[in-house]
Amino acid sequence: MTSKYNITNDILKTALETGSKAIPHGNVATYIPELAKADKNKLGICIFDKDGNKHFYGDCKERFTIQSISKVISLALALETCGFDKVFDKVGVEPSGEAFNSLIELDLNSNRPFNPMINSGAITISSLLLHKFSFLEMSDFAREICLDHDIEFNSVVYKSEMSHVSRNRAIAYLLESKGIIDTNVEASLELYTKMCSLDVTAESLANLGLVLALGGKNPTTGRQIISPKVAQIVKTIMLTCGMYDGSGEFAVHVGIPTKSGVGGGLLSVVDKEMGIGIYGPSLDEKGNCIAGRPMLEYLSNQLNLHIF
Amino acid sequence: MTSKYNITNDILKTALETGSKAIPHGNVATYIPELAKADKNKLGICIFDKDGNKHFYGDCKERFTIQSISKVISLALALETCGFDKVFDKVGVEPSGEAFNSLIELDLNSNRPFNPMINSGAITISSLLLHKFSFLEMSDFAREICLDHDIEFNSVVYKSEMSHVSRNRAIAYLLESKGIIDTNVEASLELYTKMCSLDVTAESLANLGLVLALGGKNPTTGRQIISPKVAQIVKTIMLTCGMYDGSGEFAVHVGIPTKSGVGGGLLSVVDKEMGIGIYGPSLDEKGNCIAGRPMLEYLSNQLNLHIF
Amino acid sequence: MTSKYNITNDILKTALETGSKAIPHGNVATYIPELAKADKNKLGICIFDKDGNKHFYGDCKERFTIQSISKVISLALALETCGFDKVFDKVGVEPSGEAFNSLIELDLNSNRPFNPMINSGAITISSLLLHKFSFLEMSDFAREICLDHDIEFNSVVYKSEMSHVSRNRAIAYLLESKGIIDTNVEASLELYTKMCSLDVTAESLANLGLVLALGGKNPTTGRQIISPKVAQIVKTIMLTCGMYDGSGEFAVHVGIPTKSGVGGGLLSVVDKEMGIGIYGPSLDEKGNCIAGRPMLEYLSNQLNLHIF
Amino acid sequence: MTSKYNITNDILKTALETGSKAIPHGNVATYIPELAKADKNKLGICIFDKDGNKHFYGDCKERFTIQSISKVISLALALETCGFDKVFDKVGVEPSGEAFNSLIELDLNSNRPFNPMINSGAITISSLLLHKFSFLEMSDFAREICLDHDIEFNSVVYKSEMSHVSRNRAIAYLLESKGIIDTNVEASLELYTKMCSLDVTAESLANLGLVLALGGKNPTTGRQIISPKVAQIVKTIMLTCGMYDGSGEFAVHVGIPTKSGVGGGLLSVVDKEMGIGIYGPSLDEKGNCIAGRPMLEYLSNQLNLHIF
Repeated sequence: MTSKYNITNDILKTALETGSKAIPHGNVATYIPELAKADKNKLGICIFDKDGNKHFYGDCKERFTIQSISKVISLALALETCGFDKVFDKVGVEPSGEAFNSLIELDLNSNRPFNPMINSGAITISSLLLHKFSFLEMSDFAREICLDHDIEFNSVVYKSEMSHVSRNRAIAYLLESKGIIDTNVEASLELYTKMCSLDVTAESLANLGLVLALGGKNPTTGRQIISPKVAQIVKTIMLTCGMYDGSGEFAVHVGIPTKSGVGGGLLSVVDKEMGIGIYGPSLDEKGNCIAGRPMLEYLSNQLNLHIF
Repeated sequence: MTSKYNITNDILKTALETGSKAIPHGNVATYIPELAKADKNKLGICIFDKDGNKHFYGDCKERFTIQSISKVISLALALETCGFDKVFDKVGVEPSGEAFNSLIELDLNSNRPFNPMINSGAITISSLLLHKFSFLEMSDFAREICLDHDIEFNSVVYKSEMSHVSRNRAIAYLLESKGIIDTNVEASLELYTKMCSLDVTAESLANLGLVLALGGKNPTTGRQIISPKVAQIVKTIMLTCGMYDGSGEFAVHVGIPTKSGVGGGLLSVVDKEMGIGIYGPSLDEKGNCIAGRPMLEYLSNQLNLHIF
Repeated sequence: MTSKYNITNDILKTALETGSKAIPHGNVATYIPELAKADKNKLGICIFDKDGNKHFYGDCKERFTIQSISKVISLALALETCGFDKVFDKVGVEPSGEAFNSLIELDLNSNRPFNPMINSGAITISSLLLHKFSFLEMSDFAREICLDHDIEFNSVVYKSEMSHVSRNRAIAYLLESKGIIDTNVEASLELYTKMCSLDVTAESLANLGLVLALGGKNPTTGRQIISPKVAQIVKTIMLTCGMYDGSGEFAVHVGIPTKSGVGGGLLSVVDKEMGIGIYGPSLDEKGNCIAGRPMLEYLSNQLNLHIF
Repeated sequence: MTSKYNITNDILKTALETGSKAIPHGNVATYIPELAKADKNKLGICIFDKDGNKHFYGDCKERFTIQSISKVISLALALETCGFDKVFDKVGVEPSGEAFNSLIELDLNSNRPFNPMINSGAITISSLLLHKFSFLEMSDFAREICLDHDIEFNSVVYKSEMSHVSRNRAIAYLLESKGIIDTNVEASLELYTKMCSLDVTAESLANLGLVLALGGKNPTTGRQIISPKVAQIVKTIMLTCGMYDGSGEFAVHVGIPTKSGVGGGLLSVVDKEMGIGIYGPSLDEKGNCIAGRPMLEYLSNQLNLHIF
């Protein structure tokens, strides 16, 4: 089927070459031993458009842990099942101007985490979901919304993360002390970390991106996985908060709602048009795939994908 | 001429009635004596669409000072004439999570203001423009981009503001001490405050909104007032930073790039489609027109104006 | 034996009456259910001077939990047994300008807690002592330095505290994440909380005060319990940091090194001369015994006890 | 006349040698061009004891600007003439845990500067004195309390400072915006900076130290220059706040109330006993004379001068 976007092999090739140049300036995540084992030169991209065309280039069948991109999935599920009021009573939607694991703003300014894309917000979302879903059910939901039945739990990465989880544990207990988490703290932390340990591919992320682009609809079956309103909220929060304290800069220069994970993944949504998944474990200083920014900026300019 | 949007009188009336209910919960700006004199019950809206239709409802010919909405105009002019690198070297584009007049983040985290929509950023932009333009030239530019030749300088408000300017002056000297302002501090502060003291109407703001929606083009003459790229950047920054520390919430629930001013004005841009100007001097706690939020949320839902 | 200070019954009576007037303006600690049960009208003072005279007035045989005054005992033991370098490598000695349970300064400014009198510092001290002492040995040391063999562990208060310990637990895990605590976090937290749960009297505190005043010497046996240098350091830190973010004001107007606990206790040291213990569970906003300040200010003026 | 302290030439010589070793690790103040001209190898000490003995060693007749040590003089004068309530209503007495020129704590935590030894506090004190004294009268007072009629105003340093005063000016306008300064801001800033530009010697500072040690009394005439209560307050604040965010560490390890200035001066008070003045323009990272700390620590240990 044809698309209004002419996504040729040449464009993908150039995108990858553009991204590759940035790889040496970044590094794999080192704070967790298992993540440090990734091959920093891997790079792959998958684009899935609304007309059903799927474009691959590079290492896009490689499995890696989803990490913070799981925040998008958990947020969608929480909005869908807990109600907007309950979610927004516990977590705000403001960009924070601080790094992903900041405690300061939480302690200083507010009685709720700034947004669900930083750790404090995502752990709070997990504490809400704890009432309703087991981890098995949540990973089933991840498989459904990513249109990928092969997503598995990576127990090796999970264990490695749980043995370096002090800062997130500090955040979780601070949330409890402020009455924001009122369920089991350790179970909330575990659920959050387990969701981060799901193994995806660039293709899974492209799929998820397209589902969001289509307002929550499965592109094949037409089934509404999440409501259009939930998809709208999720896309907006990805745009304003998805790249941590680099979100504003990314919105200006790329203009595509995107969420990163320290496993090297990037999930991008071109609204109503396509989903883009990228894998590249070499990270910039803020913890985002370093090749992704130039790749997406190139595609945004080339294909006119900026929101404005 | 017909538009794809059916902006009927009924819709505007309902929008105004929806907004009116919020008025009693807000207050006019009191920190500057002249602003405190406004009639808090005034409310008006003007919509100007790309097909040339202009819709009015309520007090939309009333003059009021543009205040912080001038930040949009100055930013556009700086980007157009100083170059992106020079501007972004001095001012970032990250939402700040802090109030409009915060000194803390500036002193703590950074060697440049977070973005051009908070006072520190806007004063810095003024210091850049000081090299190139007189205030007369800048107000001419404001008249041009607002398609309103009747915009005048309100010297009474200006004097009132300059006699309550200590906090902005503190910000300006802090910027000098950090080497961010390297031109005349007092002149930068004056230029900034003068630009805030231009008298506009809801109609002027609707005009400006349409110019931005059309990528910088005058809707009548087709002349490019600012480049499409500059318009794109300005719209993105309005979306992520335009409502101060309430920007994220506004983006999620309204989804229309908007900039507020404590004079009671709101400038909104529905990309490629229309500009919306609102006047209502009753403000919420964050200094935004309190009626504007429910009005724009109503219009966004009714006419499907959300970016996503 | 006579003393150069004429501590008459009248002076103590007036001190108590002065303090009593403040009681209604304060409240017992409410954040821990067991502490909330205290009788807020209790008030007692004990003074033990270097000549062996012990003066009592009011409720000074009443048992109450030592709470933060245990920080003085643990600090003394750590300095005595771990070495100054090891202790000061992990904990600073700067007043913090922040409340006792602040996370902000710890996360923001420093790679070690500001001082051992705030919770983060005291939990770190506990983590150092964990290597060397059991809780039984530490409570034995408390009995020895307080010259009070009847000090017991209050397990009811301990359990009550441990079920409201989220904030301290957050602090402890933040310390682990920064590499400041490198022993067992939960055990450090438990040891800290157990030490806070020792039951003392105003008399025990007066005894401890005199031991510190005499440079660490048991006033009866002459045995050196801690070295003069350790006593000197402890007294200085009590002066600059003992009353949290009210320490400076207390030093200026009272001028007697003092440490407070939310159980209602106050430990004061008039160097080379006497120890003063006060019990009064009605607390001011900063968590200090509200009657203690006017009592000690009265005594300081009356008996000329100010350091300068 | 003999003193209980045996201040021999050997002790002073060793003190100087001890201090000299630190000089290469420091640097002269560079933020003001005139101060950068100082000879960093200069070092001198003067001790003036209560028995009338004056001991000199090294460069103690050298003139240098008093800088922040003037904060002590201005505070004494304000307490003496404005009343304690008025002064403490405007300025606190808490150590701040922040650097001398911090804006953050002022903006964040408080409606008054933390203490009169940081710039915000000292500029506020100047704004109070502006009502009552001309700069000529204030410099007369400085001459009187320093027992030094040759103290002159250094207009070259003053001008150099006034051309690099942006940060202090930012602080001053922030104080105005918070209603803390309610007199002329520029005049307050000038008065503050002029007082910093008085030329003193190590001997002037030793004199001032002795006056404070003697409770405000001129050691020769017996005249009470300031009241004993004012001297007591000043000494306490010097102890807790005199060395900026290094005050706690200095109190613990040296235990002598001391105030530093970036001109290289140190004013120390051994209560009831002696004043010590030091000159050494090589500064440590916190802006304190780098040789002073080891010199005073040596003297404190050798002569037993610690407060405890």
